[in-house]
Amino acid sequence: MARPDGRVPTQLRPVNIHRNWLRHAEGSALIEFGDTRVLCAATVEDGVPRWRRGTGEGWVTAEYAMLPRSTDTRGARESVRGKIGGRTHEISRLIGRSLRAVVDFKAMGEHTITLDCDVLQADGGTRTAAVTGAYVALADAMKHLRKRRKLKNNPLTGSVAAVSVGVVQGQPRLDLNYLEDSVADTDMNVVLTGDGKFVEVQGTAEGQGAAFDRELLNKLLDLASGGCEELTAIQKKALSE
Amino acid sequence: MARPDGRVPTQLRPVNIHRNWLRHAEGSALIEFGDTRVLCAATVEDGVPRWRRGTGEGWVTAEYAMLPRSTDTRGARESVRGKIGGRTHEISRLIGRSLRAVVDFKAMGEHTITLDCDVLQADGGTRTAAVTGAYVALADAMKHLRKRRKLKNNPLTGSVAAVSVGVVQGQPRLDLNYLEDSVADTDMNVVLTGDGKFVEVQGTAEGQGAAFDRELLNKLLDLASGGCEELTAIQKKALSE
Amino acid sequence: MARPDGRVPTQLRPVNIHRNWLRHAEGSALIEFGDTRVLCAATVEDGVPRWRRGTGEGWVTAEYAMLPRSTDTRGARESVRGKIGGRTHEISRLIGRSLRAVVDFKAMGEHTITLDCDVLQADGGTRTAAVTGAYVALADAMKHLRKRRKLKNNPLTGSVAAVSVGVVQGQPRLDLNYLEDSVADTDMNVVLTGDGKFVEVQGTAEGQGAAFDRELLNKLLDLASGGCEELTAIQKKALSE
Amino acid sequence: MARPDGRVPTQLRPVNIHRNWLRHAEGSALIEFGDTRVLCAATVEDGVPRWRRGTGEGWVTAEYAMLPRSTDTRGARESVRGKIGGRTHEISRLIGRSLRAVVDFKAMGEHTITLDCDVLQADGGTRTAAVTGAYVALADAMKHLRKRRKLKNNPLTGSVAAVSVGVVQGQPRLDLNYLEDSVADTDMNVVLTGDGKFVEVQGTAEGQGAAFDRELLNKLLDLASGGCEELTAIQKKALSE
Amino acid sequence: MARPDGRVPTQLRPVNIHRNWLRHAEGSALIEFGDTRVLCAATVEDGVPRWRRGTGEGWVTAEYAMLPRSTDTRGARESVRGKIGGRTHEISRLIGRSLRAVVDFKAMGEHTITLDCDVLQADGGTRTAAVTGAYVALADAMKHLRKRRKLKNNPLTGSVAAVSVGVVQGQPRLDLNYLEDSVADTDMNVVLTGDGKFVEVQGTAEGQGAAFDRELLNKLLDLASGGCEELTAIQKKALSE
Amino acid sequence: MARPDGRVPTQLRPVNIHRNWLRHAEGSALIEFGDTRVLCAATVEDGVPRWRRGTGEGWVTAEYAMLPRSTDTRGARESVRGKIGGRTHEISRLIGRSLRAVVDFKAMGEHTITLDCDVLQADGGTRTAAVTGAYVALADAMKHLRKRRKLKNNPLTGSVAAVSVGVVQGQPRLDLNYLEDSVADTDMNVVLTGDGKFVEVQGTAEGQGAAFDRELLNKLLDLASGGCEELTAIQKKALSE
Repeated sequence: MARPDGRVPTQLRPVNIHRNWLRHAEGSALIEFGDTRVLCAATVEDGVPRWRRGTGEGWVTAEYAMLPRSTDTRGARESVRGKIGGRTHEISRLIGRSLRAVVDFKAMGEHTITLDCDVLQADGGTRTAAVTGAYVALADAMKHLRKRRKLKNNPLTGSVAAVSVGVVQGQPRLDLNYLEDSVADTDMNVVLTGDGKFVEVQGTAEGQGAAFDRELLNKLLDLASGGCEELTAIQKKALSE
Repeated sequence: MARPDGRVPTQLRPVNIHRNWLRHAEGSALIEFGDTRVLCAATVEDGVPRWRRGTGEGWVTAEYAMLPRSTDTRGARESVRGKIGGRTHEISRLIGRSLRAVVDFKAMGEHTITLDCDVLQADGGTRTAAVTGAYVALADAMKHLRKRRKLKNNPLTGSVAAVSVGVVQGQPRLDLNYLEDSVADTDMNVVLTGDGKFVEVQGTAEGQGAAFDRELLNKLLDLASGGCEELTAIQKKALSE
Repeated sequence: MARPDGRVPTQLRPVNIHRNWLRHAEGSALIEFGDTRVLCAATVEDGVPRWRRGTGEGWVTAEYAMLPRSTDTRGARESVRGKIGGRTHEISRLIGRSLRAVVDFKAMGEHTITLDCDVLQADGGTRTAAVTGAYVALADAMKHLRKRRKLKNNPLTGSVAAVSVGVVQGQPRLDLNYLEDSVADTDMNVVLTGDGKFVEVQGTAEGQGAAFDRELLNKLLDLASGGCEELTAIQKKALSE
Repeated sequence: MARPDGRVPTQLRPVNIHRNWLRHAEGSALIEFGDTRVLCAATVEDGVPRWRRGTGEGWVTAEYAMLPRSTDTRGARESVRGKIGGRTHEISRLIGRSLRAVVDFKAMGEHTITLDCDVLQADGGTRTAAVTGAYVALADAMKHLRKRRKLKNNPLTGSVAAVSVGVVQGQPRLDLNYLEDSVADTDMNVVLTGDGKFVEVQGTAEGQGAAFDRELLNKLLDLASGGCEELTAIQKKALSE
Repeated sequence: MARPDGRVPTQLRPVNIHRNWLRHAEGSALIEFGDTRVLCAATVEDGVPRWRRGTGEGWVTAEYAMLPRSTDTRGARESVRGKIGGRTHEISRLIGRSLRAVVDFKAMGEHTITLDCDVLQADGGTRTAAVTGAYVALADAMKHLRKRRKLKNNPLTGSVAAVSVGVVQGQPRLDLNYLEDSVADTDMNVVLTGDGKFVEVQGTAEGQGAAFDRELLNKLLDLASGGCEELTAIQKKALSE
Repeated sequence: MARPDGRVPTQLRPVNIHRNWLRHAEGSALIEFGDTRVLCAATVEDGVPRWRRGTGEGWVTAEYAMLPRSTDTRGARESVRGKIGGRTHEISRLIGRSLRAVVDFKAMGEHTITLDCDVLQADGGTRTAAVTGAYVALADAMKHLRKRRKLKNNPLTGSVAAVSVGVVQGQPRLDLNYLEDSVADTDMNVVLTGDGKFVEVQGTAEGQGAAFDRELLNKLLDLASGGCEELTAIQKKALSE
């Protein structure tokens, strides 16, 4: 019942956030959850998408992608296949929604911030690392706008972090790596604000017989809340350096 | 605080299931959740996708789509735009996963069943109506296989149904229609098995300030469990006729 | 030489037109030619395509598609394949041209009406059912515009209906079903106005040796004229209810 | 009422067929109908499409396209737009069907012949020139197969030629050029075999009020029959040189 | 060591330029380098691409393509495959860059000239024939603009021509045909101005062990300079007729 | 005439090669040419593309791409646009050709190695950094194959490195950064083997009046040879650590 990397069930992998890893982006972070490595870049642009023009409100969106050899087996590029897969779309939308939960669009004015989350290396939990790193890049992009006096107030009303939880061999565990993820019965991604409220709960019973009862659901939510609390502290520390 | 169609917060819309609405499909159901109308068709094919060949196990998958004028404003066809949007992918994947939770693939042998869920008219809750109707079509497709003596045992290990819950003006409500859905702070789609276990929990705080606490989450899960219990009874009745 | 469903050569299948089958569309009809079932929806939009702007004239166009399991064997979705097939294009264009033959674009003003014709179930003659049903949806969309006082005069200068004719085992027959269509030597789709003039004549000798002489062509045209006369009466009745 | 190029109503434009214009193709013809210039190339390949394998029968298919500056105004390349338009599909299918009407697939064995019809210069009637020229290229490709002793008997059971007819200012005319075509009320493309039977009749009333009666239809069919008779003679002469 | 067509190493194939081969284009040339036959059409349009508007400067661009049966074996159409291959892109860009080297965009005003270079028959050297022929079409398009008094001064500051050189069996040769090209160790395409300056030098060692030293590079450049001098004379003659 | 970063004309930017930056790839290098940062990953797969099967020979290919925010202004993802641009194709092909010049495919057996070169940050010279880094990743992938005893002999017959040279304000310079590249008259990318032979010479006069004479070409080639000699030494050092 030991975890493959020796962690206890409630333990995160080592988390590192390299802020400003990129020179051109208005905010950026290379975030590591163990061997998972995601490069998050925030781009600030004047103006908003057509359907939002004239509202005086801003917009935040995200695009997620994996480099072809981020994984154990090379995957074909989505640009070469000519279309974006369902999983990519789903995760891009999740990241965008998660960040928008802590943005006051009125305070942001008609600017758009795009978060590019590119997985350089994958070992499970790429979407939760992406949300967690993207928040840091977003915070720096907001600082960039304020420094240039394009915004009066900080549009961020809080922070967000995300973590995966799952059930492996009957045991609820925090922050699954790829090995654990691939054998988990239940897989849940949870996004929480810095003050402990839920932004997203996406739990899935993987395969026949894995449906879970209310008690187990509660245990998983407890695990996730604890994990995000730790991640929030790490984000804060990175942003204060 | 009254609901636009006069329902109490714990009340489903009228649900109708027209079994065998199609002549060619091995199983089919036209399901209505109020004005939401989804045509679910099950197609049985010999063989399985390449990555599953030789395992002796079957496969169940789903495709969701909306007719261009199912909605209030006409939407461009995805075939004309040349690509499938993120929302379509996400829902197709959700339906497939939900159904697979109650299928014993070994008992199914190397057959593939595809569930086509086409929204003829939309008024909120199209994805939950699709899951609920697709289960009925799937059950009939399994009967079709057993009648033709292609299967010894019933591969279905249970049933699934789905319902949406949400918070409108602070009030948790069951089975939102479009009007309610468009103003809800929190939107949650829940898939449960017939014996009350969770298959999918997808909760999202819609927009800034909507993050929800644990207590509210619990209320929403209670509502969803009650709604799916009713839907399960309706499915059973439809399949027994 | 008997027809598979017992009809005489000059006999249509039972035709049903369910007007206003959809709640959102400005006009709609679920039309049945026997087991062929096509859902026709008319969408009214202000404005016209770019190349027509400023002319003061309206536009009518159509899109045809088949649900994947409308047919005996499931067909891949065109949205999934990422492109629209030649047959789909050809039929969409035919429907649009046919309807435009009875529209006075000046009287219509700069509005666009799009007819979506989605085949829910196919048993031969889907394109002719689509033209015939689309006319009914179009007529209702025009009424919708007049009721809202957006048009002074009725832009419809007549009605259109369509039917297939073909030669099976040497015998000219009206309104072929799928079984007949698949063995026919000659296949012809004819669109006529309510006063018996030709809008489209599309006759094809299917395969080697099937080329037809002038006498046979004349017989087929007679059959088609008779069939469309009946369809015109059915349309009128539906629209008067 | 005079035609723009001085022809009488029943007169074809000057027709030229340059056989074997290409070095690599197994058959080829550069055909001119006045200023319309289409390069037709026949490619012979061993084998047939998947759905026809093992039948012992051959296949004939066609692809039509226009060079971007074949027309008065440059058109975007379909390769650049990333998809083939409806008109292109429709004409490609027409050419293929027309040729297949005079091919005995059993005698052809499992070979595929593809006719590429590329419009180098367009002045109306490109599809009818393409059918007429493609037949010549096809005939040479069949000879090529017989010379190499891959076929015992000639699979061609006849010839095909095509011509357009239309009504301009009330006058039925043969072989419209672009100027005439763009103002015609009725436009009809007719494909006939060398012995005067119909393979395709595609007549369209262009726009409101253009629907045509039976008498006019008969006149147009007479004109087309006469024109194809002349074209058949020109094909024969070209192939005998 | 003799060349397949008997030429000496420094000899071009017979070159023919048929000016104004097309009726609609503002400039056109059918150019032949031996059996290689490329149709070059220049289209003049008012205005420039968005990124260049308001600069008062013109733009020249090119699109290259091969007809499916220009080659020995039929190639699939790029429009059918739905995307343009890397080689096509590369050559289109090369042609555009080459021509722009001799255009004074200020003198051209805000006009765009597009050069369509379609290979009707291929026997090696299609891109160099395209550059050489496109220059002639471009020159005629500039004359067209000046005749219509849309330009005061000739924007052409010189001429360009292109030729391939390569090493076959150790011997440097000018203007390779397909047979030679397919066995060459080194392949180089060189574009020169009429006064002997380099616009493009694209040399490639084809395959393992083919890397070339400076001495050989110099010999190839000498050959190319000589070849382009001859081509420049042929262009001049064609344009003076 | 000073360079923006203070280098002398013959000086490279600081070059760093981080070998084995990725955990999954069979070879990898994060290479830096100043602020240009390219992640090169080599993937080894059994088997070769269809057209090469049964030859006993291997294959090496490459794919180049830029992350959206590698540049100063965010670029749309090619996966989102649904197609790969001409520049991307051109560079991918260049990298593949360059590497193949030093591979003995017979010694490699039927394996395929794919080099993914993803630009994480761009400041000019991304393609030359990619070639230089990809060679290091390729060398490690070959070692990987030999360690697993899948190859007897080293298929690498030498090394390759690449550098850009150009003319800025009349001065020939080595290894241009973005600032220099954007104002250069002439831009040349040169790939050389470790023993100083040319694999690729791609020189372009950028815009009107920039065509260059033979003397200048010689100076640029000298600069490139010197630069690649240094890069070869840096590759060797990286591979020996």
